[in-house]
Amino acid sequence: MKIVVVTSNPNKAREVAAFFEGVCEVEHVPLECPEFRHDDVGEIAREKARFAFEQLQVPLIADDTGFFIPALCGFPGPYAAYVLERIGLEGIVRLMEGKDDRSAYFETAIALADGSGVRVFRGRIDGRVVEPRGEGGFGYDPIFEVAGRTLAELPLAEKSRISHRGRALDALKAWLAAGQR
Amino acid sequence: MKIVVVTSNPNKAREVAAFFEGVCEVEHVPLECPEFRHDDVGEIAREKARFAFEQLQVPLIADDTGFFIPALCGFPGPYAAYVLERIGLEGIVRLMEGKDDRSAYFETAIALADGSGVRVFRGRIDGRVVEPRGEGGFGYDPIFEVAGRTLAELPLAEKSRISHRGRALDALKAWLAAGQR
Repeated sequence: MKIVVVTSNPNKAREVAAFFEGVCEVEHVPLECPEFRHDDVGEIAREKARFAFEQLQVPLIADDTGFFIPALCGFPGPYAAYVLERIGLEGIVRLMEGKDDRSAYFETAIALADGSGVRVFRGRIDGRVVEPRGEGGFGYDPIFEVAGRTLAELPLAEKSRISHRGRALDALKAWLAAGQR
Repeated sequence: MKIVVVTSNPNKAREVAAFFEGVCEVEHVPLECPEFRHDDVGEIAREKARFAFEQLQVPLIADDTGFFIPALCGFPGPYAAYVLERIGLEGIVRLMEGKDDRSAYFETAIALADGSGVRVFRGRIDGRVVEPRGEGGFGYDPIFEVAGRTLAELPLAEKSRISHRGRALDALKAWLAAGQR
């Protein structure tokens, strides 16, 4: 079996390929999919996969990830990358000044599309917003703390094991292994 | 001649109808258009109009508006409504603390679609970010100052005359009056 990964981001494709090594072949198709505005990463991933399947007509996966802070009503949500580029980690920390509820979570949704429809697999990791710490990771990792360490302080293998993306890939792998396609 | 206004927001439709009163008939079609993620309101309006024309096959207009703050790299941009709902005016003011460049602008793009393609008309108003003042308007109006007054301090007729939306409608009306369709 082969999985086609549709993403314009080669790092994501490599991460998926590493995850499925020895399980199945992974092919990267760098198709640019329109991203619809939606609060739910599952719906965004679903629309991307639907669009890509219409174009390519092969079974494939597409994904979307968001960073959600309940004290900011879910901001930045699916716009995490856009927001980070503009106001930076410093902007998020500033918005969180004086907030008692420091909780936050990452969520990834992976949508699998084939001729029979689209199925969405989700992974989530819960933590809290802190002042930036650590040199690893990328994006919001330095301000996102889980069990006393920020994601930027975790070795990559450890981060991958507990991360939102890893959990969504686990769910997909379990479903594929159960032979439901 | 008749203009079909495609929007899920009845207030916008009423505003357009008032603008074109005595000039042409305005019909409101409450079609929900997918909003693509894009930094440029012109491209977002263009895609909405293209989508709506495919569905309805009649000449129509669709629009999009953003609020751009250069000191925040253009944030919140086309996501102005989403951001306001989540972090509020207070969040924007907080992000602007200590920034020397207080400039900001609203931009509206109105896209006219017919069988020959899509044409985009733009309107922009420049001002600066201040502490909230005034009881009128909505959205970012209380923190957006033009010539010494916030948009929330202006009478509605005056606001409409100078606003981004009014200017984009002016451009559309001038083009229609020039008989180019």
